Formats: sequence, structure tokens, C-alpha cells
Amino acid sequence: MSFELERLRKKLSISFRDTNLLEQAVTHRSVGDCNNERLEFLGDSVLGFVVAAEIYKKFPHVDEGIMSRLRASLVNKDTLAELATDLDLGEDLILGQGELKSGGRRRPSILSDALEAIIGALYLDAGLDEASKWVQELLKDRLECLSVDTATKDPKTQLQEFLQERGQTVPNYHVVSASGLDHNQTFKVSCKVSLLNKDIVTTGKSRKKAEQKAAEKTLAELVKQNA
Amino acid sequence: MSFELERLRKKLSISFRDTNLLEQAVTHRSVGDCNNERLEFLGDSVLGFVVAAEIYKKFPHVDEGIMSRLRASLVNKDTLAELATDLDLGEDLILGQGELKSGGRRRPSILSDALEAIIGALYLDAGLDEASKWVQELLKDRLECLSVDTATKDPKTQLQEFLQERGQTVPNYHVVSASGLDHNQTFKVSCKVSLLNKDIVTTGKSRKKAEQKAAEKTLAELVKQNA
Repeated sequence: MSFELERLRKKLSISFRDTNLLEQAVTHRSVGDCNNERLEFLGDSVLGFVVAAEIYKKFPHVDEGIMSRLRASLVNKDTLAELATDLDLGEDLILGQGELKSGGRRRPSILSDALEAIIGALYLDAGLDEASKWVQELLKDRLECLSVDTATKDPKTQLQEFLQERGQTVPNYHVVSASGLDHNQTFKVSCKVSLLNKDIVTTGKSRKKAEQKAAEKTLAELVKQNA
Repeated sequence: MSFELERLRKKLSISFRDTNLLEQAVTHRSVGDCNNERLEFLGDSVLGFVVAAEIYKKFPHVDEGIMSRLRASLVNKDTLAELATDLDLGEDLILGQGELKSGGRRRPSILSDALEAIIGALYLDAGLDEASKWVQELLKDRLECLSVDTATKDPKTQLQEFLQERGQTVPNYHVVSASGLDHNQTFKVSCKVSLLNKDIVTTGKSRKKAEQKAAEKTLAELVKQNA
């Protein structure tokens, strides 16, 4: 196994029998035909099922609509990209020259796709039980924090659902600037959605808070525009 | 176990340990709070995963886009309602008075939801392996017939995807009339979609053929309207 693959395997705490699968999972389509798109399709469905089953167990009294929202608040490109960033997956991606030059290692969609592909690869290599355990560990903190309030009140989720219901792509959040000292930083964040012809810019004491505010403001604009 | 539940259990060839789960799976929300909506949410994700895994195995060389289409051609309200009708699931549904009177036993959405809920109940009762086997048996003929051509050429699938991409509900097919003798019948079918202000009506030698023609014509109209 190459040094890079061994580093990735350790980082993920997975022992792959077929390391070719792991390599394929981090190979972006910009490299060529043997890439991670098929594994991503598979991983997406594994992830959807595992999270649905966890939510069903954890929330025995909430209705189907809330369960769907709870799942959407965990299984979305944004959250997956954050998890991939936490794992520092960017350095392990195998990208074509064009993507390398244009900052593909940090692109959220590439990161989240690779994470889903890893889940698909793990399912093929070790079976559903192992893949399920790994996903549960990966999402442990977020699953623990999940509450009905998250589903009903989180503005980013609400915005995403609003867009999905209208067949639109997910919103694009972007950190415009971060200023101030370590414990007193201010983040300026923009939120871009296909249905608005301007970006919404907000500030907050953390990236997350700034994004939540941006989502709230964007949603308000969209509702106003639709009214 | 009641006579009705035993009849359903036999029909499905499933031995449920917890028959309450089976009863819940066929209980529509019109009856009250203890209904099949939560089980449907769970079953939907089991079904999505099982079919994704089957398609991944059966088509080792097709790309992710085609795999998504192949799955959508199997896992959709229309197909699930047909499968539920083949199982004669209508007579086993537990419905509120209003739904009973308005023909709920034959309503495609109620039938397909109940089938998904049964899959969810089976997963809870017997685990994923059993649920997966049952789904594979249920879809056996359709999985065998599945080809890349189905995904790329079937007009009903194409129409459904066109509408889904635009955040619209699925098309509504309706048999206007059936005439002629057993082996030489002609079906007149209408297709209604939210984006067109008229129904498209076509005829064919089977219901399926008439619907395919209607889908093709509707799609052509929508494309023309969009152009």
C-alpha cells in the first residue's frame, strides 16, 4: 500500500481488505473513467438508510415529516463536506490537473462526494454492519446533538428544504473574511442561491452562526419574492 | 392473530414475530395517530439502499447517472402501487371512514405507502438481511428485466424525472375507457401533469402501452412549452 493510502486508512480507522476500493473512493472524475462516482451513489444510499434507522430509534414519538427534516439536517452536502474537512480528507484526494490547480482539495462538493464514496467502499469491503458502525461513529456527536428543535428551527435546513422543494440546487456558503483575534473573531459569510440575483452577506462570531444568519435572511428574501 | 392479519401474512410469505408491526404497516393515517407513516419513512430508506446495491452489482459498467435512473424506474410511487395491487394489498388496508368511502383501497399513493411501511416493519421485525431478501423477491421480475435501455428510453421514467427536476409532483395516469374483447382490447388513457393546462389522451393495446404513449406525448408538449 502506498504511503498516502496508509495515511488515509489510519486517519479513517478502517482496515480495508481491498485497498483498491479505498483508492477509488478518493479518486475524482477529473482523473478519468475509474473514479468514485459509482461508489458515491452506493454510499449515499447506505448513509441514507443508516441515518434513517438511527433517527427512527432515537425519536420514537416524532412524525415522518420531522424525521425527514432531521435526516436532511445530517445528510446534506454541507454537513458531509464539514465532516470531510474535519477528517482532513482534502490532502488524500486524487484529482486531475485542472481540479488541483483550481483548489479542488477544498471544494465542498468534491469533499462530500469522496466521503460518501468511502462509505460505499467500506460497505463493499466489509459489509453493511461495519459500514453502519463507521457511519454512526462518524456522526456520533451530531446524532447526539440532534433534537426536534434542530429540525424545526435550523434556518440552514429550512432554506435547503425550501430550495429542494423547488427543484433547485443547495445554497452556496462562502467565507468572505475572518477578522479579529482567536477568541474574538468575526466572520463575514455570503450565501448564494440560484433563485436570488444577489448574494446575501452577514457576519457572526463563528462561521456557523454567520451562515445561520445568512440562511435566515436568504429565506426571508425568497419568501418575500414569492409573496 | 386476526383472520385478516393472518391472510396478509400468508399473502406476503412473511412470518412476523411482532404482528403489531404488520398491523401498523397497513394502517393509514386516516385511522389516527398510530399509523404507518413512520414505518414508511424507514421502509423507503431500506428499499432505496437494497435497490441501489442490486443495481450496483448488476450493472458494473454504467455510470452513476444511469444507476440513478435505473433506481428511479423501480423505486417510484407508480411501480410500488402496481406491486401492491399485484399483491392485492388493498383489501388488507386499515382505513378511516372517509378514506374507505372515497375509494382509499385503490388509491395508488396509499397502496405504495403501505408497501414501503411493510418493508420498514419487516426490517424492524427480522433485520436487514430478511428485509433485503424479501425486497429482492418482490422486485425479482422487474430487476431481471431492467436494462440500460429501460433507463435511457422509458418515456414514463423520463417524464417523471423531468417533473421531479422541476419540483413537480408525479404525473397522474387515468384509464378513460377500455373497449373490445379480451385479446383485442383498446385502452384510452389520460395523463395529467401540473405544468400543462390540458390532459393528454392516447390509446394503446394495453394500459401500459397507452400510458407510455401518453407520457411521450406529454413530455414532447412540455419540452415545446419550455423551448
